[in-house]
Amino acid sequence: MLPPRVSELAKGANYAVFSTSLPSGHPQTHVMWVDCDDEHVLINTLASRRKYRNILENPKVSVTIINGTDWFDWVEVRGTVVDTVQGEVARQHIHELSQLYFGTSFGGPDENRVILKIRPDRVVEHAPE
Amino acid sequence: MLPPRVSELAKGANYAVFSTSLPSGHPQTHVMWVDCDDEHVLINTLASRRKYRNILENPKVSVTIINGTDWFDWVEVRGTVVDTVQGEVARQHIHELSQLYFGTSFGGPDENRVILKIRPDRVVEHAPE
Repeated sequence: MLPPRVSELAKGANYAVFSTSLPSGHPQTHVMWVDCDDEHVLINTLASRRKYRNILENPKVSVTIINGTDWFDWVEVRGTVVDTVQGEVARQHIHELSQLYFGTSFGGPDENRVILKIRPDRVVEHAPE
Repeated sequence: MLPPRVSELAKGANYAVFSTSLPSGHPQTHVMWVDCDDEHVLINTLASRRKYRNILENPKVSVTIINGTDWFDWVEVRGTVVDTVQGEVARQHIHELSQLYFGTSFGGPDENRVILKIRPDRVVEHAPE
């Protein structure tokens, strides 16, 4: 099970910074929507994206989810991409995320979507004082 | 010279997500204050922090600076830590950052501070539509 604070932040309309590793050894980061199920943090991207190619080579990633109203309230999930989901489920998922964040259907590309299922290896919680 | 949008975001009271690489191969990320000079992005941390030990082993990092009022306005600087500054300059710097972000002197530890000078290798700008 995910820690409760991770689930709360991931289920809300909060943004995440998703980090993968480039073959060059640089981290690559991107501001993303985020979701979760009971055991995984979920990131929805496109199969054509550099970050997806990165995780095929190195599935170790980091997802930092930030409370949209407090920069001192965030969690970092260091984890491993243990599964991916493509097809209709991933297409529906991006529209659900758009409803959550924007209240409308997704206006961007909804083909070739892929859900990254991230199993936490270590979680760091940073609470406001 | 830094790209103008990087300087603008780094000079304002905007937060950054700073990514380094752990020896395990995981990215490690942390929400941070950020600054810049004409050529470098500047991060002020403690010499005792894991992220500092990470950059001694692998100086390739990523700094994503997010406009505090718009999650779709951000820049990612993938760069290399090319120099560090410790001592009184680094101590003063954390108080200057605290003034910028909080309008007060820094209330946390101001000994053993270290400024990481990050030379951009690649900059990705993500502007709102």
